Amino acid sequence: MADVKKKTGLIVVNTGDGKGKTTAALGICVRAVGYDMKVAIVQFIKGSWHYGEIDGIKRLAPNVELFTGGKGFVGIMDDNLPREEHEKAARSTLEYAKELMLSGKYDILVLDELNVAVSIGLLKLKDVLDLLDKKPELLSLVITGRGAQDKLIEKADLVTEMKEIKHPYRKGILAQKGIDY
Amino acid sequence: MADVKKKTGLIVVNTGDGKGKTTAALGICVRAVGYDMKVAIVQFIKGSWHYGEIDGIKRLAPNVELFTGGKGFVGIMDDNLPREEHEKAARSTLEYAKELMLSGKYDILVLDELNVAVSIGLLKLKDVLDLLDKKPELLSLVITGRGAQDKLIEKADLVTEMKEIKHPYRKGILAQKGIDY
Repeated sequence: MADVKKKTGLIVVNTGDGKGKTTAALGICVRAVGYDMKVAIVQFIKGSWHYGEIDGIKRLAPNVELFTGGKGFVGIMDDNLPREEHEKAARSTLEYAKELMLSGKYDILVLDELNVAVSIGLLKLKDVLDLLDKKPELLSLVITGRGAQDKLIEKADLVTEMKEIKHPYRKGILAQKGIDY
Repeated sequence: MADVKKKTGLIVVNTGDGKGKTTAALGICVRAVGYDMKVAIVQFIKGSWHYGEIDGIKRLAPNVELFTGGKGFVGIMDDNLPREEHEKAARSTLEYAKELMLSGKYDILVLDELNVAVSIGLLKLKDVLDLLDKKPELLSLVITGRGAQDKLIEKADLVTEMKEIKHPYRKGILAQKGIDY
């Protein structure tokens, strides 16, 4: 087969209402570190990670670097900032992600909760698709968050839906450290 | 609510035909390390991990320890060993996992590809369910592999199906280091 691509970067999307979207991205970091690859994680929802995740990722430094989304981009609209501030911060985070993507320093770029930023309208889908078009061939993008748009899925190579089959909240069990956060 | 459980171990199952089952278990390791928790990973399918994963996990030592399934348990029946040898090895791996579970040394025990060992008949479902019944309250179990049995799902607290929406193999792209393995 002439068109088999041996080595290439992939556009990976982890979406769905279940657990494991960001967690699998963290797992990709573990694997990448084992190959001495470089990973940058850009968080589009500031405050979405707990200190355990942040401290855990530090153990994978310097191979893995974490960048938290632009100033002012706090939570999903659950604060008193005007919406324009959120949009501005989301856009500057996307701009920053693009710089990292084009820097030549990374093998994998994780865009954490990017799908959420798009689905709540903080980012234009078109701007995200434009970013994907500029992806260097050998770099892989890992995009997480529920509600991935169809057009994003179209452009992606590897899309997994994390589907909730059963959740302990339903039995009255609270979120557990290490598993849920 | 009187029956809200604040701190408890969970039985977590990552199943389905998509990517991210073992990868999300690796991500749980990152998070757990950030909380200085202890994790043991038991592999039921020897040879299912590449060196990148193994080397990556070493970066999380000593919090995370990896135990490869019993001697002789190589691949999924793709060798010349008699089936009884595979069954014996799977049973001894399950026995070993039970020892680790009851040792009091770990907060989280990952049983990697256990579902596969059950679905191809190397382990009896009953023996696995018996193990779940003996789980110490505060320990969490993370069970991975496609084809989780209904009775296992019944006993679990948190079940996620990783569903394949799109896969690059279909476009003639080979498995990629860091993403696929």
